[in-house]
Amino acid sequence: MSDAEKHNAEMKALQKAQREKIAEAGDPARGLVLVHTGDGKGKSSSAFGVVIRALGWGQSVGVVQFIKGTWVTGEKQFFDKLGGVTWATMGEGFTWDTQDRDRDIAAAEAAFAKARTMMESGDFDLVVLDEVNIALRYDYLTPEAVIAGLDARHPRSGVILTGRDAPQALCDYADLVSEMREVKHPYQAGIKAQRGIDF
Amino acid sequence: MSDAEKHNAEMKALQKAQREKIAEAGDPARGLVLVHTGDGKGKSSSAFGVVIRALGWGQSVGVVQFIKGTWVTGEKQFFDKLGGVTWATMGEGFTWDTQDRDRDIAAAEAAFAKARTMMESGDFDLVVLDEVNIALRYDYLTPEAVIAGLDARHPRSGVILTGRDAPQALCDYADLVSEMREVKHPYQAGIKAQRGIDF
Repeated sequence: MSDAEKHNAEMKALQKAQREKIAEAGDPARGLVLVHTGDGKGKSSSAFGVVIRALGWGQSVGVVQFIKGTWVTGEKQFFDKLGGVTWATMGEGFTWDTQDRDRDIAAAEAAFAKARTMMESGDFDLVVLDEVNIALRYDYLTPEAVIAGLDARHPRSGVILTGRDAPQALCDYADLVSEMREVKHPYQAGIKAQRGIDF
Repeated sequence: MSDAEKHNAEMKALQKAQREKIAEAGDPARGLVLVHTGDGKGKSSSAFGVVIRALGWGQSVGVVQFIKGTWVTGEKQFFDKLGGVTWATMGEGFTWDTQDRDRDIAAAEAAFAKARTMMESGDFDLVVLDEVNIALRYDYLTPEAVIAGLDARHPRSGVILTGRDAPQALCDYADLVSEMREVKHPYQAGIKAQRGIDF
């Protein structure tokens, strides 16, 4: 086989695989559960990328942020201005900005109660639980409670759960688990966090 | 130390680390080069998440798509409707939808010429070269040409390059490399690609 023929055969195989993947695409019969975890960049930003993808198809989207820092993020400013996304931020915030464990647990539970309401309502094609894995990591929420909430979701609603250290039980439950692995990070070279890129 | 004290100490350490990270944040002195690679989900969607983050800060953004499929994506529809993002799509598309190698190479080179113009102009805070790594993977572009283009960029412009199989030379050049690793994928369970989630 010549190089051109080999290339042609390779491209045809790719084309076939890709067409098979998208052949029966359409409105999902069942919303999927996606977990974005790992120590690398891109867990939340790819969830927000999926949000705009869903909005592009005219789907309805809800976001619950489980970490409310004291700093302002570009994505929050963007969606505030855009409108159309139902956005809930945990009242108090926790981890590095709150040093009271009982209050942290109460805040996490209140945020998850909001998330449950969104997931069960049937009003959303996509619900993002941003940084919920951090609440799990610090035992502010139990994996059992989160899985029970996912299980009770409206069949229409897909859910993305982000944050490092996703517990194994959640990964077992999920349809898709993607690990963002940090291969090289500019902090290692002493470069500071930047607007737009990092937050 | 009691559990509460340990928790408190842990939270304080986290808070300190986080504050150090964002302490000197602001307009970047130099746009970073980010590579999103790996076989998992989230390479392009996290780039689009960074796009909205940048837009949230009022930054200007350009996107060059190196793979133009015959299908419509949610992100393209979203940004078309939103406006304000300079968007270039490679004329012909390649790989599984084009089976002529010479035409593929010409199309990739034309797309990269557009990308160079954007990167050198100084008009953009962020330029996304979506799926450019696929063009590298099939030798439609050389790593040397891509790195020369990055090197000639305006200092203001950050660049994100997405796609699996990023060449080592590009990873060596980049400030940040994030690998999206597929831990579990619904295609494995026979679930088809879904609107909103996958495209």
